[in-house]
Amino acid sequence: MISSQIHLASRPIGMPTLANFKQVEVTLPALKAGEVLVKNTWMSVDPYMRGRMMDKDSYIPPFQIDAVMDGGAIGEVIESLNPQFPVGSKVSNVSGWRSAFISDGQDLTLLPTANIPEQYFLGVLGMPGLTAWVGLMTIAKLTPKDTVFVSAASGAVGMVVCQIAKLNGCKVIASVGSDEKAELVKSLGVDAVINYKKVTDLTQALRDAAPDGIDVYFENVGGAHLEAALNVLNEYGRISVCGMIADYNAQTPVPGPSNLLAIITKKLTIQGFIVMDYFDQFEEFIAQMAQWLQAGKVKSQETVYQGLEQAPEAFIGLFEGKNKGKMLVKL
Amino acid sequence: MISSQIHLASRPIGMPTLANFKQVEVTLPALKAGEVLVKNTWMSVDPYMRGRMMDKDSYIPPFQIDAVMDGGAIGEVIESLNPQFPVGSKVSNVSGWRSAFISDGQDLTLLPTANIPEQYFLGVLGMPGLTAWVGLMTIAKLTPKDTVFVSAASGAVGMVVCQIAKLNGCKVIASVGSDEKAELVKSLGVDAVINYKKVTDLTQALRDAAPDGIDVYFENVGGAHLEAALNVLNEYGRISVCGMIADYNAQTPVPGPSNLLAIITKKLTIQGFIVMDYFDQFEEFIAQMAQWLQAGKVKSQETVYQGLEQAPEAFIGLFEGKNKGKMLVKL
Repeated sequence: MISSQIHLASRPIGMPTLANFKQVEVTLPALKAGEVLVKNTWMSVDPYMRGRMMDKDSYIPPFQIDAVMDGGAIGEVIESLNPQFPVGSKVSNVSGWRSAFISDGQDLTLLPTANIPEQYFLGVLGMPGLTAWVGLMTIAKLTPKDTVFVSAASGAVGMVVCQIAKLNGCKVIASVGSDEKAELVKSLGVDAVINYKKVTDLTQALRDAAPDGIDVYFENVGGAHLEAALNVLNEYGRISVCGMIADYNAQTPVPGPSNLLAIITKKLTIQGFIVMDYFDQFEEFIAQMAQWLQAGKVKSQETVYQGLEQAPEAFIGLFEGKNKGKMLVKL
Repeated sequence: MISSQIHLASRPIGMPTLANFKQVEVTLPALKAGEVLVKNTWMSVDPYMRGRMMDKDSYIPPFQIDAVMDGGAIGEVIESLNPQFPVGSKVSNVSGWRSAFISDGQDLTLLPTANIPEQYFLGVLGMPGLTAWVGLMTIAKLTPKDTVFVSAASGAVGMVVCQIAKLNGCKVIASVGSDEKAELVKSLGVDAVINYKKVTDLTQALRDAAPDGIDVYFENVGGAHLEAALNVLNEYGRISVCGMIADYNAQTPVPGPSNLLAIITKKLTIQGFIVMDYFDQFEEFIAQMAQWLQAGKVKSQETVYQGLEQAPEAFIGLFEGKNKGKMLVKL
């Protein structure tokens, strides 16, 4: 069995390019007792992977040069010497960026057999969904009285943030980077949408959208969005810091906002989090989200690139705003 | 009875100057039933008052032009038509910046008669002390395993932070702005002192002082101190944001640090607070701190200016680093 794999060819400086990736074919050995052969059907590209392309200590080890990258994927067991995962099992796994792999099963999770498209487990029912859930409920301690501002609102996490906040009775202000994306998040029932590329004063646009201020800022972007949120947050406001995509490809340090004094005067709480610390909430989250999906209360949206060879383009597209909803690669 | 008062003559632009203040003599009326006449003996100048000199909405109303300023003070009742406050009572009050005033007693707190110097109730046993206590115990949720970094460590709050953290078994790294101040905080038993004016790389100096990183940063300063703390904080670190004195007199916006991404990668929590939200802890705090003081486990340090006419200079001196410990004016 041949597995096609995407290797990290070189570490990007600034925006990643196709030259940072290399596709390699490797021959997989025969299965040993307890092992299974998984053929991936979908893989995920996520902004956090940009950090793993750098050679520095972080909460997750860096990708190695000339080694296969990894990340979330969905696959099907096509050969099995492990009774827990018979042939035909659908599994979520962390061995993305490759067409097939051998596993002893420890890093595989069987997908529930409910009538849910399998790729949802990389999006609304996967890490991005759990990220939205944890960031709102655990980090920001959402209450129905809150007005929530979310940046990158049409992204994989942002879309779920919009919907969970609305389902909790909150007022939601969404920021996106195109009119097309604005239409998408409007269809989710948010109260106001800002196309930040069309406004000259993001603070003023946010004030106009939220005349009584915001209570929670779900931070995916950083930079001017953070500054506007600090300006418009109410007393005791919370910032749930999930991402700062505006800074990920910066080649020189980007100064922070000049209004950090608001942290004191408004008694704000700013908390960063990494979803993998909250996997103990996955079961509760999946149960709730599956119910919402089946009741039609939450919608999923995907942008799909076709074939492993397009995975680098899909990944780079994340930083060019090319995705609406979850960016996926269909293998 | 004549009361000398300091009025706000004009709002400062950048660093306050003596021209922003004006001393005025007013004649106090005769006491009415229930009222007392208080002669102040000590008054406090504090960095937060800089914010009140500006005409903008905040957690506390701005000072008004051509009106008396106010703030913490200690006084003695010299005439009384209120049996709760007989002549000779020592009271803490919020009517500083004046030599005497009339009160119906509602804004007065009787000082305990224990053998404690009365001005301590403006410092180690007053708002600065409570600020240190709340910022460490409630906001940063201090544990004995924490390594604590505190900026402006020789100031009224910082000195108490150093001592409470040491009494909790923590390792303490202190930053100060002169060798003389470094000697002072060393005498409090801290583990390492950085004179930030003598180092070229504050991050490196902090790393050298705390090779295993810091867990709590008690923020009094902002700017380069915040950046260094973000660089050296460990995972799940906490920043208790009490003040950002480096920014108070800025005439143009000062950009924030360029390493805010650490909030995510290290899963940090940053929380601003205003001590007046925590007055319900005053009793518990006073009981503990009085015990520490009487056991010689906490030291007080004061810088004293003489006479109301020196109050503006004392206040300006806060931003010039002229105080060691609590800055006070003896009336």
